[in-house]
Amino acid sequence: MIVYKRAILPLGFSANAVASGIKKSGKLDLALFYSQTPAKASCKFTSNKLPAAPVKLNKEYLRKNKYFQALLVNSGNANAFTGKMGLVYARKSAQVLGLALKIKENSVLVNSTGIIGKPLPFLKIKQAVPDLVKGLSRQGINKAKKAILTTDTFSKEATVRFKIGKSTVTICAVAKGAGMIAPDMATMLSFILTDANISQKALDLSLNDAVTNSFNCITVDGCMSTNDTVILLANAQAANPLIKKGANLNLFSKALNIACLELAKMIIRDAEGATKFIKITVEDARDSKEARKIALSIANSSLFKTAMFGENPNFGRIVSSVGASGTEVKEEDLKVSLSPLNKKEIDVTVSVGRGKARQVIYTSDLTPEYIKINAAYN
Amino acid sequence: MIVYKRAILPLGFSANAVASGIKKSGKLDLALFYSQTPAKASCKFTSNKLPAAPVKLNKEYLRKNKYFQALLVNSGNANAFTGKMGLVYARKSAQVLGLALKIKENSVLVNSTGIIGKPLPFLKIKQAVPDLVKGLSRQGINKAKKAILTTDTFSKEATVRFKIGKSTVTICAVAKGAGMIAPDMATMLSFILTDANISQKALDLSLNDAVTNSFNCITVDGCMSTNDTVILLANAQAANPLIKKGANLNLFSKALNIACLELAKMIIRDAEGATKFIKITVEDARDSKEARKIALSIANSSLFKTAMFGENPNFGRIVSSVGASGTEVKEEDLKVSLSPLNKKEIDVTVSVGRGKARQVIYTSDLTPEYIKINAAYN
Repeated sequence: MIVYKRAILPLGFSANAVASGIKKSGKLDLALFYSQTPAKASCKFTSNKLPAAPVKLNKEYLRKNKYFQALLVNSGNANAFTGKMGLVYARKSAQVLGLALKIKENSVLVNSTGIIGKPLPFLKIKQAVPDLVKGLSRQGINKAKKAILTTDTFSKEATVRFKIGKSTVTICAVAKGAGMIAPDMATMLSFILTDANISQKALDLSLNDAVTNSFNCITVDGCMSTNDTVILLANAQAANPLIKKGANLNLFSKALNIACLELAKMIIRDAEGATKFIKITVEDARDSKEARKIALSIANSSLFKTAMFGENPNFGRIVSSVGASGTEVKEEDLKVSLSPLNKKEIDVTVSVGRGKARQVIYTSDLTPEYIKINAAYN
Repeated sequence: MIVYKRAILPLGFSANAVASGIKKSGKLDLALFYSQTPAKASCKFTSNKLPAAPVKLNKEYLRKNKYFQALLVNSGNANAFTGKMGLVYARKSAQVLGLALKIKENSVLVNSTGIIGKPLPFLKIKQAVPDLVKGLSRQGINKAKKAILTTDTFSKEATVRFKIGKSTVTICAVAKGAGMIAPDMATMLSFILTDANISQKALDLSLNDAVTNSFNCITVDGCMSTNDTVILLANAQAANPLIKKGANLNLFSKALNIACLELAKMIIRDAEGATKFIKITVEDARDSKEARKIALSIANSSLFKTAMFGENPNFGRIVSSVGASGTEVKEEDLKVSLSPLNKKEIDVTVSVGRGKARQVIYTSDLTPEYIKINAAYN
């Protein structure tokens, strides 16, 4: 298994991006990921009760259709809290792209990220689609991975390759997200493309496992977004023996886990204003749900996060977060250790002496820069 | 009913404070509130599962005893996560003060606030107790109200007076708290003294109601402390007819509510680094629990709080917080209104169209100054 820290498209995929004018800065803001042949899809969406229009539309398409060929992504506008017109514009975007690619409207999945509550500038998207389609290429991934970004300072990308029999399978994953990040899929978009030949059930199982262990283990600010989406497309072009279960499924699942965890960690490294990458390990909990609850209580404590920024070994804020999690931890069973705080990477280990379960959560510090970024973002 | 924005001791109470050396700054750090006659007590403590030693001790004393005469409070050290010695030092503090005042050890309630995880400097307390007792006076409340403060920039105090028959009843309340504030009693100490003659049951009912509608409706940073305590002492010196139920109980309860809400709002006004006082009203919820959950989801969103600091009318962050609360709100039923953001006091009103319940939560904005204060605090 080889892990590349850059995006390399699997067989049968191409991509492109253009600057459609949605972003006032004139930066790339409209991306297309395309599979030449119909691909199976597995998706995870935000659990926010007020999801954005594209999330609603994708759910509808996933009920109606089993194969997909295109992922359209705009940045700069979330098309969230945009009422009926939001859904109309999302659907029209899929239609316009479907026409240009000569595929069905509902084999397109649409995605948006950016400001909430402003109408999606659909005409800009419509006008940009012909160029977007015309420019599709294997190298286009290098534009597409940038076009999906908002406050990110670098692109998140990883590729994992492994062999199944004589076939080389490639998993290429890109993501955006730097703030409003919390488990249960905060403002995070991730698109994962693979040429693996894999059953729908195996695909769903693998994605569920990978997301649980990666994107759902990170938190920047505890804020859950309306648009979070992970989409995995598998187009079978690697022509490997069908992955259904056993060793081959384990291999695929492992590779997907690696790709997702790489991206999740990059999101934390790029967390808005962050100066620290913090790994919180809760050990000896009764079960992993309990361990997760305690770890998140620490990770989402503004006081803990500011102490990390100040390189201030304030054990009290860790202890009080453990107690605030509602878990019946005994003071005498609690052990807290901290790696040196003058480093960029910090390990916090908390043992609660209640059992054998363990959970790792990744987070960042809270800094004046975070506030500067978010006070101004509009 | 008359409301004073300053502390005026009720009949039969005196107070004092000294600088015992716990605070390195040399500021006042040891306070005593004293009732000449035994007083009934009603208390509320943190729900943190790792409470500080004084909280544990007070709970023990409240099981053993019904009348109390002294509240000892130190600032600068929370005596939390201090193991067995923490409890020993808390008990010894009560003993030393009990001896000096010639009252039983368990008619003293002890309270601490400050840094967590450092041994309580008991010897400093022991050495300071004689002067603390000697200096007791009615004017001593003006020192005591300052000695309980930590990061507060001003003292929180209110007095409410009303008549029952020919007797004047006084309720005097002081509090400390400026950060680590969240419902369920975050780092907040409040001491409320009254000369009312009131039954234990009526006292408990009134305090429960007042705390629910005041201290449990404020949040600065969603962080729950190990030390939160509200203590209400009633010494019956006003010699009014016993308050048990009906109009007299309503009157007492109303006065207590006013005093507590005044203090709660002062805590938000003094929130660490805050530039805004934000009132969040959630209307038309199914029940008040639901309204509270939604209001807190908004109030504890770092993104919402930074937007308020930036005077940035980012409706999206309010909407996504409503959705993140887990409540099944429909987009078309949601109405959000914001008062002008260039003022110090901001009203956020959210109507969710699900019922008739309503809840108000008070919070502050999140600012670079909050981080500066908390990155350095040690």
